[in-house]
Amino acid sequence: MEQKSSKSLQKLSELRRQHKSLINLMPLQTGGMLTDAAREALIEFGDGYSVCDFCQGSLCNITNPPIQEFVQELLPHFLGCEVATITHGAREAKFMVMHSLARPGDSILVDANRHYTTFVAAERVGLNVIEVPNSGYPEFKIDVNEYTPLIKKHVPKLILLTYPDGNYGNLPDARRLGEIAQEYDIPYVLNGAYAVGRIPISMEEMRADFIIGSGHKSMASAGPAGVLGMKKKWEKTVLRKSGTYSNKEIELLGCSIRGVPLITLMASFPHVKERVQHWDEQVAKSQWFSAALEEVGFKQLGEKPHRHDLLYFDAPMLYDISKRVRERGYFLYKELKDRGIWGPQPGLARSFKLSTFAADRRQLGFVIDSFKTILNKYS
Amino acid sequence: MEQKSSKSLQKLSELRRQHKSLINLMPLQTGGMLTDAAREALIEFGDGYSVCDFCQGSLCNITNPPIQEFVQELLPHFLGCEVATITHGAREAKFMVMHSLARPGDSILVDANRHYTTFVAAERVGLNVIEVPNSGYPEFKIDVNEYTPLIKKHVPKLILLTYPDGNYGNLPDARRLGEIAQEYDIPYVLNGAYAVGRIPISMEEMRADFIIGSGHKSMASAGPAGVLGMKKKWEKTVLRKSGTYSNKEIELLGCSIRGVPLITLMASFPHVKERVQHWDEQVAKSQWFSAALEEVGFKQLGEKPHRHDLLYFDAPMLYDISKRVRERGYFLYKELKDRGIWGPQPGLARSFKLSTFAADRRQLGFVIDSFKTILNKYS
Repeated sequence: MEQKSSKSLQKLSELRRQHKSLINLMPLQTGGMLTDAAREALIEFGDGYSVCDFCQGSLCNITNPPIQEFVQELLPHFLGCEVATITHGAREAKFMVMHSLARPGDSILVDANRHYTTFVAAERVGLNVIEVPNSGYPEFKIDVNEYTPLIKKHVPKLILLTYPDGNYGNLPDARRLGEIAQEYDIPYVLNGAYAVGRIPISMEEMRADFIIGSGHKSMASAGPAGVLGMKKKWEKTVLRKSGTYSNKEIELLGCSIRGVPLITLMASFPHVKERVQHWDEQVAKSQWFSAALEEVGFKQLGEKPHRHDLLYFDAPMLYDISKRVRERGYFLYKELKDRGIWGPQPGLARSFKLSTFAADRRQLGFVIDSFKTILNKYS
Repeated sequence: MEQKSSKSLQKLSELRRQHKSLINLMPLQTGGMLTDAAREALIEFGDGYSVCDFCQGSLCNITNPPIQEFVQELLPHFLGCEVATITHGAREAKFMVMHSLARPGDSILVDANRHYTTFVAAERVGLNVIEVPNSGYPEFKIDVNEYTPLIKKHVPKLILLTYPDGNYGNLPDARRLGEIAQEYDIPYVLNGAYAVGRIPISMEEMRADFIIGSGHKSMASAGPAGVLGMKKKWEKTVLRKSGTYSNKEIELLGCSIRGVPLITLMASFPHVKERVQHWDEQVAKSQWFSAALEEVGFKQLGEKPHRHDLLYFDAPMLYDISKRVRERGYFLYKELKDRGIWGPQPGLARSFKLSTFAADRRQLGFVIDSFKTILNKYS
C-alpha cells in the first residue's frame, strides 16, 4: 500500500501530455489552444488567488488586472450584448440562466442537437426538456420554424438553440429563431460555445436574450472558462445580488472564475477578436478538407455545403479494418498518432469528428495523405 | 473609441502582476502558491481542454493524466473520507451539498464566522440560514455546544462549521460538533478551506458527513479549484447521476474543473501531503510572529494562544497615522510594498489580516522590523 501510494505520488510530480506537439484536429481542443500572451499570463498569474490582489469585493470590478474593462466594455461589444459576465464555462452559464428564469416543473424548449450539458443543467434545476427534432441522417438539420408549434403547445420558460452543435457543426437559422422568440415573447438563449471566438457573432443581430461562449472551446483559453452576455433587462434576474452582500451576485456565488483561466481568456482576447474576422477562410478550408476526405471514401454528415470547422465523418472502410486488427477501433488513433496527428477520439473508427480550425492547409494536406496511406496499408 | 479600444487590447497582451516576487502574507494567497511541479504542469496542460485527451465520458475516471487515481484513491485517503470529488472551489462544493440535501424554505445552521459564500450558496438554494453566534470581541470564538439548542429549535437540514474561519483563524471543536451531529442525526458539513492542505485533518475523525477544501486557498493550486469529501452514504444524493446520461453527475453538470487548475492541484499534491506533517512548526511560527507584533503595539484578535497562520490585528497607531497622511489607509500598503512585503488589503490600516504560512522566520523577522520602522517614520 505504502509502495503503491509512493508510486502514485511520483506520477503526479511528472505529469506529461502525450499530444502536446501533434497536429491537433480534436474538436474540443482546436479553438482552445493558448496564444503566446496567454501562456505568459499563465505563469504570471498561476499562483492561487493572484488575480484578486486588488479586489474590492467583486471580481468583475477589479481594475488591475483590467478585469472590469474586459467584462464591462470589451466583452459586451464583442458579443453584441448589453451586459456580460464570466462563468466557469458554457454549461455553468446555461445552469445559471435556467436557474434564474425557471422553476422546478417548468418546461424549456431546446434543439435536439444540444450538448448533453444543456439537458443536465435543466435536470439540475428540475425542468422538463422538450426537444425540437433534427432532420435525421445524413444532415441532422434543425429547422427553427419547428419551434413555433412547440412554443404554442408547451409555453416554455425559455428556448435554447445550439449554434453550431458540437456533433455536426450545423448552423441553424439563429436570427429567424430570434424573430420567433420576440413574436411569442419568450427568452431566447443562444449557446455559441463553438461560435463565440471563432465566428463573428452578435447577440443583438440574432435577436437573442442571452449568448453563451466557452473560453476553453473557442476563445484560446485554459479550461474551464466561459462568458455570458445578456440584454440589460435580464441583469436584475440573472445577476441579482445577495440580500445580505450587496456586491455579490447570487448565481456566481460571489465570484466565478477567480483564477488563471480568466487571465488566459483576457490575454488571448486581442487575438481572438482579430481571428473571427478570418472566419470565411476557416469555412473554405473546412470545405476543401471535407471534399478531400470524401474523395478518399469517407462520408461527411451534417450540413452541405458545410459552414463550420467541426466535421463528422462516417468511415465504413475504417470500421471494416477495425474488425480484423488486434487494436480494434484504437488502430486509427495509433496510426494517426504515429504520424503526428491527434484528432479522432481514441477507440473510434467507424465514425469520427474532426475540426480543421487549428491546422493550416499544409498540415491538413498531410492529414489527407495519411488517411490514404493508412487505408492502403490495411487494404 | 477605436483608440481607446486599441489601448485596452494592448493592455491585455501584457498582463503583469505587481506582487509576484514580494514576501507574501496575503491570507487568501499564502496556501495557494504553486509548487515547481505545478508550474510545469501549468504549461504542459495549459491549452483549453487538454486534460480531456483520454476522456471516456467522465472527468474523474480519466486515467491519463491519472485523475481517477487522484480523486478515487489519493484524495479520500488524504481527506479521511470514503468518496471524494473535485469542484470549482469551496463555495461551489457548499452549494452542491446544500442543493442536494435541502429544499427552498428549509433551514440550515452555520457558525457566525462562516465565509460570506456560505450565506450566498444558501441564498442560491433558497434556504433560511440560522447562525450560531461567536463570543464577540476580542476572541470571536464559536462554542459548538451552542449548536444543540438551535438544532432542537429549528430542525435544520444540515449544519456547517467553518474550520478555521477566514477572519480570525479560530479552530472550534469540530470533533465535538461531530458528536452532536451524530446524536441528532443531522448531516454535518466541515468547511476546511483553510485547513485541508495546511493541517492534518480527517473527516472521519471529526465525525463529519462532508469535508470541503480549497485548491487555491490551501492546496498550492491555481484558482479556482476545490475538493469535496463525503461519507459513502451521501454519494447517491450529492453525486446522483443524470437520468439520461448515466455517467454524468448532475451537481457537477457532468464535469467540474475540466482544465488546468485541476492539473496544478494534482501536481502539487505530493508536496501538500507532506507539508501538513509540519503543521506544528507553522503554529509555532505564527505564535512567535503574533507575539512580536503585539510587542510592537498591535493587538491580535481571535483565539489565544493562536493555532493557525491566519492572524487578525487591530492597529490603532496605524489608524492614527492614516488620518493625517495624504495616502490615507493606503499608506500601509505602500510602505510595505516599498519594502518588498505584500499582505494587508490595500486601503486598510486600522485593522488587517495576515498569514504567516508562506514566509519563513527570516522573512517574518524582516516584516516585524519593517512595521517598527514604519511606525518610527511617522511618529
